[in-house]
Formats: sequence, C-alpha cells, structure tokens
Amino acid sequence: MPKSFSFKIHASQGKARTGALKTRRGDIRTPAFMPVGTAATVKAMLPESVRETGADILLGNTYHLMLRPGAERIARLGGLHRFMNWQRPILTDSGGFQVMSLNELRKLTEEGVSFKSHVDGSLHHLTPERSIEIQRLLDSDITMCFDECTPFPATEGQAARSMRLSMRWAQRSRDAFGERDDHLIFGIQQGSTFRDLRAESADALRRIGFDGYAIGGLAVGEGQKAMFEVLDYAPDMLPADRPRYLMGVGKPDDIVGAVQRGVDMFDCVLPSRSGRTGQALTRRGAVNIKNARHRDDPRPLDEECTCPACRNYSRAYLHHVFRAQEIISSMLLTWHNLHYYQQLMAGLRDAIAKGQLDDFVADFHALRAQGDIEPL
Amino acid sequence: MPKSFSFKIHASQGKARTGALKTRRGDIRTPAFMPVGTAATVKAMLPESVRETGADILLGNTYHLMLRPGAERIARLGGLHRFMNWQRPILTDSGGFQVMSLNELRKLTEEGVSFKSHVDGSLHHLTPERSIEIQRLLDSDITMCFDECTPFPATEGQAARSMRLSMRWAQRSRDAFGERDDHLIFGIQQGSTFRDLRAESADALRRIGFDGYAIGGLAVGEGQKAMFEVLDYAPDMLPADRPRYLMGVGKPDDIVGAVQRGVDMFDCVLPSRSGRTGQALTRRGAVNIKNARHRDDPRPLDEECTCPACRNYSRAYLHHVFRAQEIISSMLLTWHNLHYYQQLMAGLRDAIAKGQLDDFVADFHALRAQGDIEPL
Repeated sequence: MPKSFSFKIHASQGKARTGALKTRRGDIRTPAFMPVGTAATVKAMLPESVRETGADILLGNTYHLMLRPGAERIARLGGLHRFMNWQRPILTDSGGFQVMSLNELRKLTEEGVSFKSHVDGSLHHLTPERSIEIQRLLDSDITMCFDECTPFPATEGQAARSMRLSMRWAQRSRDAFGERDDHLIFGIQQGSTFRDLRAESADALRRIGFDGYAIGGLAVGEGQKAMFEVLDYAPDMLPADRPRYLMGVGKPDDIVGAVQRGVDMFDCVLPSRSGRTGQALTRRGAVNIKNARHRDDPRPLDEECTCPACRNYSRAYLHHVFRAQEIISSMLLTWHNLHYYQQLMAGLRDAIAKGQLDDFVADFHALRAQGDIEPL
Repeated sequence: MPKSFSFKIHASQGKARTGALKTRRGDIRTPAFMPVGTAATVKAMLPESVRETGADILLGNTYHLMLRPGAERIARLGGLHRFMNWQRPILTDSGGFQVMSLNELRKLTEEGVSFKSHVDGSLHHLTPERSIEIQRLLDSDITMCFDECTPFPATEGQAARSMRLSMRWAQRSRDAFGERDDHLIFGIQQGSTFRDLRAESADALRRIGFDGYAIGGLAVGEGQKAMFEVLDYAPDMLPADRPRYLMGVGKPDDIVGAVQRGVDMFDCVLPSRSGRTGQALTRRGAVNIKNARHRDDPRPLDEECTCPACRNYSRAYLHHVFRAQEIISSMLLTWHNLHYYQQLMAGLRDAIAKGQLDDFVADFHALRAQGDIEPL
C-alpha cells in the first residue's frame, strides 16, 4: 500500500473487525457502507447531504460514466470528485458487472467485452487495460480489477473457467495499473459457491498482490443462506491486514451477517433505489409508504431516527408526496434510507470497538422481529 | 387589518415601494416573490432550501390540496405549515383559476363551479364559501377570494359579466371569512384590459374592504405590452396603504416592470417549472442547459451567483445530469432559479430604499441585452 495510505484495525470481536482505511482524501471508517453514485450523482441527493448521513466514500460506476458523459471528458473537467462535488474518497467498479447485467448485445472474449451503448447504440470495447485507464481518468481513489462476475447458478466447471479468466484479467489489471502513490487497486475473488475455487482465486490474487480484496460473485441470486455459507470461509482466505469488500451487498441483515464474518466494506443501490420506489428501511424493517394505512398517520417513519424525513415529516406527508409523484418523496426517503444504513454501520463499528457485537446483533434482530410500528 | 398584522411602506420611488407585511409567522419583505408549493411542496426543493434562497412566504394551491390529500385531512394533521414543514407565512389561492384552467369537465353557475377530480374522477363543488372553508382548514395566513379569472381575449361585455360575478363572489367570500384575528383575506380585481371595468372592480372591492388587493386576470395571454398598459393604471385604483399582489406573474422583466408600476407581491411557477425542464434563469437571460454547447464548459451558470448550483458545479455537470435525467438536475436548477428570483427581489427592494431604482432597472436590462455568456 502506498505511503499516504494505511489500513488499521482498531478492534476485533470474533471475525468482525473495526478500523479505518486512511486515504489522502480522508478516512474510511470500517465496516463502511458506500452509497452508489452511478452517473456522478447519488440519485435524489446533494453530495453534502450524503456526507451528512455519515458516508466516508462513494462508489462510481465505470460503465455508466464511460458512456455518458465519457471518462476523457470528466478528466478534462478535473476528475470525478470535482465534477460531482464530492471531495472525499471514491471507489469505482470496473464496468464488468454492468456490461454483463445491463447489456444484452455483448460479446465476451479472452481480450475483454464488446457491447453496444444503451445511451446511443455506439460500439464499445472494455478490456482490463481500458477499464483501468478509465478509472485513472476518473481519478478514482480505489480502482477495481476488471473481472467477470460469474452468473448464478454455475456448474463447477463453468465457475472455474470464469474465475480463471478473471484471474488472468486481474493480472492484466494489476499490470496496467502499475505503481501509483496516490491510488489503490483492489483484486476481486471469484469462484461462485465452490470453496476450492474461492481458495484458488484468493491464492492467485495474493500472488499478484493488491491493496485490498473484494469478494465478488455473491448476491447474484444464491440467497442469504448460500451467501453466508461462502462468507463462512471466503474472507478468511484473504489477507487479514487488508480491507475486504463484499460487492453489491446488501440488505441490512446481509450486512450484519457479513460483518460478523469479517467483511469491512459494502456497496448497494438498495437504500437509494428503495427510496425512489416508496420503501423506507428502518430498524423495524421495511415500510411501504404508499400503503393507505399511512394516509392519516401523524407519526414519523421512525420516532428515534434523526434524519430530516423523520425529524420534520409525518408518514401522512410522505404518503401524500409519494402518491402525488413529487420529487421530494425520493429526496426524503433516500435520505432516510442512507441515514439508516450509516447509523447501522456506526452501530456495528461501535459495538465491535466495545466488544458488544453479540448484544448489538441480538437487539438488531429482536427489533426487526417486532415489525413495523402498529397501525394507529 | 387585525392587530397582529401590519403593512408598512419604508420607502418609495415613483410608484414603486418597498416595505414589509408583518404577520404572526414572520415578515414578508416587499416587493416579494412567492415560490409556488402546489401540492404541499415546492417541487424538487426542501423547504429549508427554499428559505435559504430568501423566500419569506410560499403559495399553496387550494385546487390541488382539496383533491389530494384533502383539506380536512391536512387540518386533522395540524394544518398546511406543519404538514409541509414550512413555519413561515403561506398564501393560498382560491382554487378558481385552476378549476377553470386545468379542468375540462366543469360547470360554472352563480353558485360556483362543479368539476371532476383529475386525480380520481370524483365530483366536486367549489363555491366562495367552500373555498374559504378549505383555506381555513389549510390554516392559510393569506386567504384569497374565490373568483373567475376572466379568459383572454374577452369582449367588454364578457369581461363585465365575469368581473361582476367575481365581485358578488368577493362579497360572499368576505362574508364567509368573517372577522379573524390571525388571518388575512385579499380581494381580487378583475376587468380584463378594460380600464372602466378595472375601476368598477376596484371600487366594489374597496366597498367590501379587504386586508390586501390582488390584480387578477393578467398574464393570461395578453402579452407584456398589454399587461403593462393595464398596470399603468390598475394598481393606482387600489388602496395605497395595502399590499398589491399581481397574480401568476411572471418573467423577471415582467416583475421589474410591475414593481415600477406599484406592485408589491408576485407568484409564478416559472422558476421552478423551468428548472425541471433544463432552463436556468440568470442575470443575462435564460440558459438552456441541455444545449450541447455546455457539454465541456467548466464554468458555472453565473460566475457571480452564490447558489449551490453555481458555487459547486460546472455547466458541463448540469448538462450531464439533465441529459441523464437525474433528479439532482431538477434540484440544482430549481434552487438556482429561485435564488435568482429572490436576489432580483432583494435588489429591487434595496434599490427602492436607496432611491436608485432607475439605475437598477437600467443595469438589469443592459446585462440581459448582452445575452448569455459567450461560448468557450
């Protein structure tokens, strides 16, 4: 890891750990949740509001940004931080996952992926080298290797072939990245739900050598039980002194379970996307604000939440503006959801630091079991 | 005017005046621009952000609120201020204008208007008495008389019949309002572009007696020249010691011309609606941010503007998020436009107070004549 960076673990309990990844743009307290700023904006939020929720780092999407407004354009404009007015760390994904999941007209070869833009139909090629170049143009603080996220389900043979391609791409990504004083690069473990393949992938990544290690290919349809089974061993295969990042996860209980299993970093569109579709995530579970039972309810979403939506508005108001399709509905529910996620991460960090993680997790599940506040 | 209210004119220059309408919920500095919060939200803005632009008062729409979420519901929830988290003054229109302009299945009689809801097709009746009742349920600080906004063009006979109906409704509105210590009621002058009818209407309203007087039936297609011709005499017909409110106006140069002619209050959807369609209103005129010439422009919309959109973002970013249909585009452009409008009002107030209105107006037009900043 370059000199201006460090990863310090301050406390651990069982496999769970809390610490900080120090970067030149500020510390990332771990376990960390990274809100997703796909197209250079966390949808429906101003960046200062995202920071107010407690976020230390955002995730940006290479796939979306390369197509619009274009990586070279963002570079000319001074990089992604200046462009989107977020001066703290940014992690960018490699574009590989979105090319495969969002694009039906794609072609995968040893070299990389060819695909048509969903914006204007133009033809694009994404290779490990180009992905790393794009992430450099964006001036991403944490660059991710270009990989193939193995689809689920996969046979062991399919998963092995896919993982080994990703490991060859990991080497090419690492070579293209080179040595840089001001940026980090993370490798991505694949291997689907096969323990031997996860071990082989971890070994390959360790041999190449990365600043941090992601666990990829989970939360792709296998379900929480199968995911936790992989997480019972996969994080242990990765270097203990480096941050471990579980990509695309997840629901609050997914995150709690993964933290217990030794994961340090997370990203997911769930809190922001749910906010736009009228779903509030609270300590007691999900609240569908469009439900008619909220129509006359003067209470906030969560009496103990300190976000602007809960401090200033009734469920009745949130119901009204959702039904009326007002933009403020997306603004308030997204803010609430991101605030809740960051509160959850802060609670996990605090509990680990105090050696009270078991109590914290028990309380977390007990409150959710009660369900949403009883109707009036 | 009830004791807890007052309207003081601090300075005047020509017909223009500056002062303050004091209310129990705070002072309204005049000339004042009221952002429109149709459905209990100024679209794409949090109310604290609206206040940050300098707004002293919002406008709420009776028509929209009676249909969704319903006036009785808002009353049960503690009134419109608490519902939408805006503790400063609110003026509500009577619903008359929207019933006629937004609703094609309506029937107008001496009694009032019957119409079908655009939300769920249900049948509604709006009369002077019901309009006043709804505005009371909303706990509006300034109630507007129920009237018919005379369509344009109208013959003198049509305009006279329409105006006289509005004057009978004004009496019924005043009677229904009664005497209240904590709320004001404004009458609305009609008469289209006919001077004699405007005089007759003003006399009728003065005989009834109101706390303030609006000029209605303008900005309905007659054009700025014809509007200014009416404004050359219409405000003078209304009591000089009461606020004068020009309804639904307008573009920045409309407002400047109307202030010069003695108008104190304005409302218009233009700054918020334009913001959502990618049009920024600046000291140099309108900027269409979707235009490709902004694609690589690192400069803000207006170098001298202090709003968040101009402080923190390039035209290139605003162009990108508009093209990508991101919510932040509406948020930032609406904020900019409302900020610009409030800066314009502050400039007008300051110029009148200093006796420098002529210079201010000359500078205003000179800057606009230069047009938008030259392309790079």
